[in-house]
Amino acid sequence: MRLVTLRQHGGDRPGAVLRASDGTDRVLDLADRTGGRGVEALLSDDRLLTEVRALVSAADPDGLPGLDSVRLGPPVRPGKILCLGYNYRGHLETSDDPDHPNVFVKTPNVICGPDDPVTLWPTTPDVDYEGEIAVVIGRWAHRVSEADALGHVGGYTLFNDVSDRDWQSRTNQWALGKSVDGFGPLGPWLVTSDECGDLRGRSVEVERNGEVTVRSTTDAMVFGVAFLVHYLSQVITLEPGDVISTGTPARTGPAQAAHRSLTSGDVVTVRVTGLGALTTTFI
Amino acid sequence: MRLVTLRQHGGDRPGAVLRASDGTDRVLDLADRTGGRGVEALLSDDRLLTEVRALVSAADPDGLPGLDSVRLGPPVRPGKILCLGYNYRGHLETSDDPDHPNVFVKTPNVICGPDDPVTLWPTTPDVDYEGEIAVVIGRWAHRVSEADALGHVGGYTLFNDVSDRDWQSRTNQWALGKSVDGFGPLGPWLVTSDECGDLRGRSVEVERNGEVTVRSTTDAMVFGVAFLVHYLSQVITLEPGDVISTGTPARTGPAQAAHRSLTSGDVVTVRVTGLGALTTTFI
Repeated sequence: MRLVTLRQHGGDRPGAVLRASDGTDRVLDLADRTGGRGVEALLSDDRLLTEVRALVSAADPDGLPGLDSVRLGPPVRPGKILCLGYNYRGHLETSDDPDHPNVFVKTPNVICGPDDPVTLWPTTPDVDYEGEIAVVIGRWAHRVSEADALGHVGGYTLFNDVSDRDWQSRTNQWALGKSVDGFGPLGPWLVTSDECGDLRGRSVEVERNGEVTVRSTTDAMVFGVAFLVHYLSQVITLEPGDVISTGTPARTGPAQAAHRSLTSGDVVTVRVTGLGALTTTFI
Repeated sequence: MRLVTLRQHGGDRPGAVLRASDGTDRVLDLADRTGGRGVEALLSDDRLLTEVRALVSAADPDGLPGLDSVRLGPPVRPGKILCLGYNYRGHLETSDDPDHPNVFVKTPNVICGPDDPVTLWPTTPDVDYEGEIAVVIGRWAHRVSEADALGHVGGYTLFNDVSDRDWQSRTNQWALGKSVDGFGPLGPWLVTSDECGDLRGRSVEVERNGEVTVRSTTDAMVFGVAFLVHYLSQVITLEPGDVISTGTPARTGPAQAAHRSLTSGDVVTVRVTGLGALTTTFI
């Protein structure tokens, strides 16, 4: 299933995206079934998830409203956002893989939806984008083995790890440059683990104003999802809705050479096979 | 006022601490007045805060239960925990003040109450303590001036920034060593801004098993509270209950020379003039 947050009827409501016979995406409102709880609550409740699957199977997509007629919020509201630095080969200056994942935290005020623009604040002079695959936790994970880890993943979505490089580089800890209000578009939808399947061999691309600046595959990832969930859960209890963003591949040589800070009107798209595309306008 | 979270009657309830005529501390349950909301909700609601002040003034402390008869939770449940590194003179190796505050994030799973022990997990081999003054945000702060900043502070409490040095030093970002489950005792109470007054000239001490290992004063702080709230609010909207922990002074020379990782049974007390003492047992 593809799960979304619908911003309508005066609040955020969970929903599912279905493909109609004309090839367009339609939305099924699930709020009545979840009692007002969000997608993260649904992921952690087996009985509810089974009910929702049945509802989605029984629905006639052709009779549902179009996805383009609704505004989407972030698919989940993570309590914790754990991000990876240097997790694709080619992003580090050495050719050796690092010994340990390099993890930093973004605070929850960064999260915005796939239809929200990102504000370039007067106080953030050097804003940059990073296109990433975000792992969304479905079940509480405390010290889980690598073999069991994927059972705690609810699904996958896309994340733009927006950063202000000026704030990020002021001291040795990156936190402030990473935690600016709204600097974390998430979406457009969460693809549940069962539908997503294995992440191997997928294209990861980022476009800026229609030009591809990042072109890689998930095979270049250093630490995979199962290891990351296992590793992080050794010290941090992961909760439903928590996000682990798996890092960005490096920009292509020419794109890096031509790189400049984002300016108003720039449009960045993150695209991964099977996970859709997350397009963000900077204003 | 001194505000606390009472862990009783099947949940967390806000309360106030009052001094009885025999010199002991007593607790006044405020849950009926706050409609089940926590201390952070109280701090952000002027009308409610005025009501609570009146209630506290009118109460007869001698008729209230003793503070030692109740179990305390963390005074607030912060959505964001922003911590300072190297914010006391003497903690850096150079004698020059740094140009910018060095800020890192702890995730909310670290927060525990003043009566909770901290677990030394089998996966955390090198655990250390840091005694700090925590600023608790009372009103939303978005790009506030340094002159207005203190008006957004709800109060102050104590924080033990517990860290695992092994995890912290695996990569250049400290996040995982700082965000271990339960590695953030907070309390015992929040002293509201009006009662606390200016932080200058206060003794900051940390004891391990009764021996003083840190002895400093707030005058050695590099970046003060007003500047920190102003600076952080330039990029992060601060919300009621959010915590800014102002950093630890360095250990005394002999204490640093004798320092070893915490082991089961160790007891650490953070003590600051006017803010009480936060005592934590490690198990």
